[in-house]
Amino acid sequence: MITSAQNPKLKLVRALMGRPKERRDSGVFVAEGIRLLEEAASSSWKFRFVLFSGEMSQRGSKLLAVLKSKGIETEEVASHLLDALSDTGNSQGIIAVLEQAPLPMPKSTDFVLIPDQIRDPGNLGTLLRTAIAAGVQAVFLPPETTDAFAPKVVRAGMGAHFRLPIYDLSWEAIREATLGLHLFLADMHGKSCWETDLRSPLALIVGGEAEGASLPARELAEASISVPMPGHAESLNAAVAGAVLIFEVIRQRKEG
Amino acid sequence: MITSAQNPKLKLVRALMGRPKERRDSGVFVAEGIRLLEEAASSSWKFRFVLFSGEMSQRGSKLLAVLKSKGIETEEVASHLLDALSDTGNSQGIIAVLEQAPLPMPKSTDFVLIPDQIRDPGNLGTLLRTAIAAGVQAVFLPPETTDAFAPKVVRAGMGAHFRLPIYDLSWEAIREATLGLHLFLADMHGKSCWETDLRSPLALIVGGEAEGASLPARELAEASISVPMPGHAESLNAAVAGAVLIFEVIRQRKEG
Repeated sequence: MITSAQNPKLKLVRALMGRPKERRDSGVFVAEGIRLLEEAASSSWKFRFVLFSGEMSQRGSKLLAVLKSKGIETEEVASHLLDALSDTGNSQGIIAVLEQAPLPMPKSTDFVLIPDQIRDPGNLGTLLRTAIAAGVQAVFLPPETTDAFAPKVVRAGMGAHFRLPIYDLSWEAIREATLGLHLFLADMHGKSCWETDLRSPLALIVGGEAEGASLPARELAEASISVPMPGHAESLNAAVAGAVLIFEVIRQRKEG
Repeated sequence: MITSAQNPKLKLVRALMGRPKERRDSGVFVAEGIRLLEEAASSSWKFRFVLFSGEMSQRGSKLLAVLKSKGIETEEVASHLLDALSDTGNSQGIIAVLEQAPLPMPKSTDFVLIPDQIRDPGNLGTLLRTAIAAGVQAVFLPPETTDAFAPKVVRAGMGAHFRLPIYDLSWEAIREATLGLHLFLADMHGKSCWETDLRSPLALIVGGEAEGASLPARELAEASISVPMPGHAESLNAAVAGAVLIFEVIRQRKEG
């Protein structure tokens, strides 16, 4: 059992939770909690190792048994040390270090999401969660968007990270990867999404909380679309605006 | 200038930011930051007092001048004390204590939102922000929902609190206040919102993150509606599901 805060595995987890550079250089990230790690296990995600404490629920113990049966390295940690690692202060007794190995791109795509300049980790995670629920096939992250593998993004994503191909790409690479797709930019001054035909294959760029979309996003987009706001607000939360637009695409396609 | 952390005004702000009971008993709440307080001022909200520090932007100084010209009590605080009060650690140099005086109910309503068992302050604030953007006319909060005047709710609401009638009501009072409205419950097992006619006057109950809607909500609702999820997710974030449904109501009414 690990009883020292100076243990190399604990030091690695702390470093991974703190710094984007650490995650990029090592190609791994941290996920915690039973439900999230059940998702990782059920989608056969690659684990580096698992840390657990004695204070786990029955559901947690079952998950741990599954992980062990897959040959994944597990190690017990004194529970106060595990809780101190946790981003929420409540690890539910289990934290894992997972490989950052993006899922393969589907051969053909008709719906790609591009979160642009999204800085708030909760908003990015919520966009990923919404994307997987709606059946978006891939997410491209331009350089200005916050790191998708930061702990708060992973938590808000609720397992989306294990099902959705997520790629960090330059704008030039995004231009190439979206050839053949119509590019729409979510913009409050754009045309109403209800009056825009969104049925053909497309990529949707959702701009950030403060400044909206970046210059490269504006240059790349063919058209701007908006969620009409008949009420008294200046703007919607970025994850909310993205969700309304994402499900409008699904609605139009369903109605044919 | 206030230079002691034991100053009664600072003690009041700290108490109001911490405990729902304190806010209920005193009938006031805290809002911070320039943009939010600009919203409060422009909607003629009642201020109890304003605390500010010397470290304010030009926009902040302009706001302060407006507040003073309205005869609102303002007092300077040492900037480290003001930042220590702030929920975000960055007050933008201005914090206010405001009256909790609900706006009058509109004479007739055709769209009411009922956030039910929403525990996460960010989600409740986002729902309020979405509601005001969509033109929802009132929000009824049943007893199980988190306090709408908690600092994180006010922040995520982005000014919705100053434009939207928000009422804490028992389920019995909600039943009476929604006579004449159709009651729909957001539920992932409900009928597709795209196949439900949402054009007649209605109240929408959006259930909580974990357990969904409460028993009284289920009893009161006439029908359940859902956001169809063609992808791989168990559920949507409560604020996201609520937003998609709220804007679907607006879309249907616009299309007639």
